[in-house]
Formats: sequence, structure tokens, C-alpha cells
Amino acid sequence: MQQVLCNARIATMDGAGYGLVENGAVVLDAGRIAWVGADLPEAYTDLPRQDLQGRLVTPGLIDCHTHIVHGGNRAAEFEMRLKGASYAEVAQAGGGIVSTMAATRAADQDALIASALPRLDSLIAEGACVVEVKSGYGLDLETELTMLRAARALRRLRPVRIITSFLGAHAVPKDFGAGPDAYIDEVCIPALRAAHDEGLVDAVDGFCEGIAFDPGQIARVFDVARDLGLPVKLHAEQLSHLGGARMAARYAALSADHLEYADEADARAMAEAGTVAVLLPGAFYTLREPQAPPVEAFRAAGTRIALATDCNPGSSPLTSLLLAMNMGCTLFGLTPEEALRGVTAHAAAALGLTDCGRIAAGLRADLCVWDVMHPEELAYRIGFNPLHQRYFGGVS
Amino acid sequence: MQQVLCNARIATMDGAGYGLVENGAVVLDAGRIAWVGADLPEAYTDLPRQDLQGRLVTPGLIDCHTHIVHGGNRAAEFEMRLKGASYAEVAQAGGGIVSTMAATRAADQDALIASALPRLDSLIAEGACVVEVKSGYGLDLETELTMLRAARALRRLRPVRIITSFLGAHAVPKDFGAGPDAYIDEVCIPALRAAHDEGLVDAVDGFCEGIAFDPGQIARVFDVARDLGLPVKLHAEQLSHLGGARMAARYAALSADHLEYADEADARAMAEAGTVAVLLPGAFYTLREPQAPPVEAFRAAGTRIALATDCNPGSSPLTSLLLAMNMGCTLFGLTPEEALRGVTAHAAAALGLTDCGRIAAGLRADLCVWDVMHPEELAYRIGFNPLHQRYFGGVS
Ligand SMILES: [Zn+2]
Ligand SMILES: [Zn+2]
Repeated sequence: MQQVLCNARIATMDGAGYGLVENGAVVLDAGRIAWVGADLPEAYTDLPRQDLQGRLVTPGLIDCHTHIVHGGNRAAEFEMRLKGASYAEVAQAGGGIVSTMAATRAADQDALIASALPRLDSLIAEGACVVEVKSGYGLDLETELTMLRAARALRRLRPVRIITSFLGAHAVPKDFGAGPDAYIDEVCIPALRAAHDEGLVDAVDGFCEGIAFDPGQIARVFDVARDLGLPVKLHAEQLSHLGGARMAARYAALSADHLEYADEADARAMAEAGTVAVLLPGAFYTLREPQAPPVEAFRAAGTRIALATDCNPGSSPLTSLLLAMNMGCTLFGLTPEEALRGVTAHAAAALGLTDCGRIAAGLRADLCVWDVMHPEELAYRIGFNPLHQRYFGGVS
Repeated sequence: MQQVLCNARIATMDGAGYGLVENGAVVLDAGRIAWVGADLPEAYTDLPRQDLQGRLVTPGLIDCHTHIVHGGNRAAEFEMRLKGASYAEVAQAGGGIVSTMAATRAADQDALIASALPRLDSLIAEGACVVEVKSGYGLDLETELTMLRAARALRRLRPVRIITSFLGAHAVPKDFGAGPDAYIDEVCIPALRAAHDEGLVDAVDGFCEGIAFDPGQIARVFDVARDLGLPVKLHAEQLSHLGGARMAARYAALSADHLEYADEADARAMAEAGTVAVLLPGAFYTLREPQAPPVEAFRAAGTRIALATDCNPGSSPLTSLLLAMNMGCTLFGLTPEEALRGVTAHAAAALGLTDCGRIAAGLRADLCVWDVMHPEELAYRIGFNPLHQRYFGGVS
């Protein structure tokens, strides 16, 4: 079906700045954008029109880093910590990633889907059209597959595109007898192969950190990903500088994520490799991390910057991309323009997607119509949702 | 109409802790709470019942400090600052409170109402049943009255209780020829008297700060409030320690608000006077204020702590009380229990209201029903709204 959205201010995010088109129109045709601009060509003037009354149109939002599929929540742990419990006490009480692993293993696929849906709905309500979802709380072959199947099933239940990342290398489960090397060989890599055989994997992710895996261990997983023809991405330099970002760049990773402790050399290596810097201010905020990621270094190197919620039950129970945008500006000093590019064009790049994230002829008609006048308003407000309408593949 | 809400976990916020009632019921009668507890008395067993299926019930939320009535927004200024403009440059470009004053003066009452409604709706969508609204962007007699009339008109448009505070002593407008003393005498006090004559004022507020008014100037406004029989409250110790909190306590103020630079003596004076400490983490977060309010001193002194959005276009464009709760915990170290009390029982106290903020027989049936199991979940999530149902005066 063809139609024209007219009388809009359009932030195409294509080209420099917001790529603003004033008093513009977008032509939708069979789920794609057929045309965008200010002077509607003859050929389209007879199509049905929707008058947007001057509202702002942006690309549909993209959350390129989430863990929305998981069992349980960690609210009790949140309360324990605020009542003064130490991390050791929380761990002793069964808190931390162990509790999420246990709750995820105890849930079946339907339960994982049911608990993920409200989180997904919260993202969609703010205009998300693409949501990445990671495994990584099963930490055994069967549960890692169940998590990915649950994530893929979300596609059939909501009008949204789900991209799945295999994150077997998230942590070594406490009940696994041997160390991280054995876990990589005996659990992570076999689970990756099995998930890939079932067609469940869009990309391969890892957690490179002192409390998780070192770059050498991650590299072994990435080598398998390369053999399987899968792109990679990495949680890197979140709490310390271990060299994960540069290692990810050597594998031409789609993205390196978190990056609080990344440096200028990392920024340059990522820029050269085309690796997107995915910043996750929700985790930075929740952990009260003292060091912010090196935004100036990314700008200087030309590293593309994306923003995501990192929605997870421990360090970032955040289900609002608009709030991630505001936090990116307020906490990391991004401009509202960088923040919007970070949840559209650059978020698409962080997922290896070329058919969305901008408003341009030929791309998917994933669009947001906002009750605001100027695009900077999207990052400015806090806890407010001005979404008027969302188009997913041309369907509102 | 009488009815019973049953099969609920009830955080009454009455007594110690959450005042939890497991497997409880609330009896509603003509807009009031007739009974709350675990074993429903005979007398109520024949009433119509709503089974809440184990959901959590809390008092309706109360936002005890907002500036939701104002013209314009400051998104362009937000963007300017993040692109590197200094405060002086922003001011030169017409930014700051001056721009909000100009936009507010340029708006008529209907325009102020129309722009406040989406902000109010955002608060109501999360369960707010009482919202305080301040004047203070008119800074001339006529516009201060228009702001208060607009605030009061919101009551007729939405099912919510609006409490109005006169904040003529917010700033000296640049176009006012003389200094702050003349402004207090010639504009603020006459406007207060006029607003009170029209029945528009529930409390009198001021901004005691180096960039606004000193305690002596505020005291002259408070003296008039005392003559008129109006309670007072004060923006105090936000950016420096000027003695406003202790001065407010001497006037038995309902609340002193912000308080980043308050000290132990302030905390004790406020506790003795019954003055509530209203903490505003949205402004703290937006301004990236280095010093947090002295929560430990408030606890030690027994000062009651409330939380509010401070929703305003400059330093806190926040329209989510749940997010204010999360920020209160994450940024100020409040417990989830203190945060919930801060937007219920203590927020009521900060407004001088005794008929709401707790779930107890005789109080208004302002209630929230949440899709969560435990009350700590309300402060734990970020940018997520689990409200299932709201009762305002017994009406859902
Ligand atoms: Zn993550
Ligand atoms: Zn205020």
C-alpha cells in the first residue's frame, strides 16, 4: 500500500546533523520508504495522505544492546545494597548474576517470553522498531538455546524486529567444576555451534573483564564465530582496561560496548575497523561508575557512537531509550544530535543493519512521529514519552 | 458506592516499614477507605469484590513539588550547553529563567493549561493522585495569578488533586527596574495578597539562594503569609548554604526543598519544627551537582524525607515520580522504602495534607494497584511503568 505522510519536520539522520527537512513528506510503499523530501513529485500527489500537522518524524528507534530475556528480577538485592549490605553479603544471600542464572534456568521458554514482553512493550511504546536481545544467563547449552528461542519468539508476538546475540561467554557459572578455559571449550563453543545450527544467532558477543573472560579466551570464541560466518561484538573496558576493545577491532567487530575505560588508541582502532562504540549510560548510572567513556577521543578519531539501554536485571533495569538518550547527554556530554544518531543510524550500524536507522529512499519504513517541534526535545525531557505514532515496516 | 479490593499485598505506609499486609483487602466506601487488613469483617463480606490477584497496592502517589505550569521549553538551551556554550552565552541568547518567564507571559491561561496537561498526564499515568503546582514564572502580578488559575483549572480537566503554591519570590525579572527588595514589596507581596483574595493559594513558597533572595527578603514574604494564615515552604540550600532551611523551620514551614548544602543543625531544626525535607534528585542529576543532600543527618535527626520531580523546564524536565524514586535511591542512597514513603506519606506531610498518603481507615481512597510483587520493585526499575490501576477518591 502506498501513502504519503506530509506536513512534517523530518530528522532523516541521513547526512550531516539531523538531516532536517522542513515542511517535508515521506512516501511509503510496500513497507519501504519510496521518497523523502520537501517538494512532493507529481507521481505521488494522488496518493492517500496523512497530515502530520508539523510534527517531528525520525527513524524508528533501535535498541542495539539489551538482555530483556531473563528470569526473575534483582529488586530485593537493590534494596539490600541500599540498606547497607556489601557485595559479599549480597553474593552470600544468592544475589548477583547467580540469582538471575538460577531464575532463568528455572523458567521455561513461555515464562521467559512472558516476563520479557512488558520490557519489550516499554521499548516499543517509545518507538523502538528494532531490539537486540542477548543470551548469557543460561550458561549451559540447553538454557542458552532456550533464551535465544524465547527472544526469536518475540517477533511473532509484537510488531518489532528482534536481533539475537549469543553471549555464552558472559560468566563462568559457579556450579561449573572447572575454570573459564574449560567453560569456553566445553560449554560456550558447543552451545554457539548448536545455536548457530538452529539458526538462532545473528552475532556473537562476550564479556571481557576481570570478573569474566580475558581477551585470549574471548578470541577463541570469536575464531569459531569467524568460521561460522557470524559477526562479533564485545562488552569491553567497562570496569578496567583489558584490551578487549582493540581485540574486538582486530576481529572487525560490529561494536564494542560500555567502554568507560577505553583510551584514544582504542578509539582509533575502532574507527579504522568500523567498530561502533555502544555507550550504556544506564549501567554507568546504576553502578555510580566514576569514569565516563572517552567521548572526546571517539569524536576525534571518528568512531561512531551508539546508545542503548543495556536492559538487564542487575546493573541497568532500564527500559527507555529516550532516557538512555537523556543520560547520554547529561552523564556523558553527548549532544542531543549525537544521542538521536546513537539510537538510529549508529545503532543500526552496531547491529550490521543497512536497511534501517535513517530516513532515505529504499530503506524500511520504520518511523516515529513525535509530538514535539524540534529533535533536541527527544533527549531533553526526562521520563516523558511524546510518541504520537510508530510505523513498523510502513504499518502504524 | 461500597466495594472490596481483595487478594492484594498492601503497602499501607502506615506505621513502620512498608506497613505490609499480606493477602489483604481494602474496603472502599463513598470515596474513602472504610477498612484495611487481612481478615475481612463479616460486615463487608457481601460487598462487590475485585480480585487483585496478588498485586501490590500502595497509596496513590503524591508529587509535592512541581512547576508543570509554564510556557515554552528549554530544549534549545539544553542542546546549546551540550554543544559547549557557556552559561553566559546561553543567557545572552535569551536562555535561562528569562526565556521561561517570557514564554509564560506570552501564553494565555488556555495555552498554559494545554501545555501543562501532557506533563500532568505523564504523572497521572504513573499513579499520581495529588500534584503540587507552583507559580513563579510570571513575576508580575497578572501573570502570577494567571499561572495559579491555570493550575487550579487542571482539577476540572483531570481526576487529580491540585495543590497550588505561590512562588512570586522565585527571581527578580530582568525588566524590573529596581532590586530584590523593591520587587518583594512592589510585586511579590501585592501579588500574594491578590492571589489569596481570589482563593488561589494553598501555600507560599520562595527561592532562597544567592541568585534569588536572601533569608531576610523571604522572611518578609513569610510574614505576610502568616498574617494571611497560609503555610510556607522554601527552596533552600540548593547551591550554597544561606540559612534558608533554618529560617523556614523558624516559620514552622511545611517543607524545605532541595537541601544539597543543608547541615546537621538544619536537619535538627527541621525535625523539631516538623518541616519535611523534600529532595529533588532530578535537578541534582540535570545540574550534575557534586554534593548530595545530607540523608544521614536527616535520618539521625528524624527529619521526614519526601521526594518530588521538581518538574520544570530548566533544571529538571522530569515527569516521572517512579524515576524520582529510583534517582533518590541511586543518587542519594535512600532505601526503596524511604523512596516510597517520600512520594506518599511524607509527600502528604510536605503539603500539609492529613487525609491521604497512607492506606488507613478514614483516609481518601487514593490507591495504586501495581503489576509487581514487592514494593521495592517500584524504585528498582528505570523508565518502566508497572501501574495496573489507579483509584482516585475511590473511582478507577
Ligand atoms: Zn550488556
Ligand atoms: Zn522548584
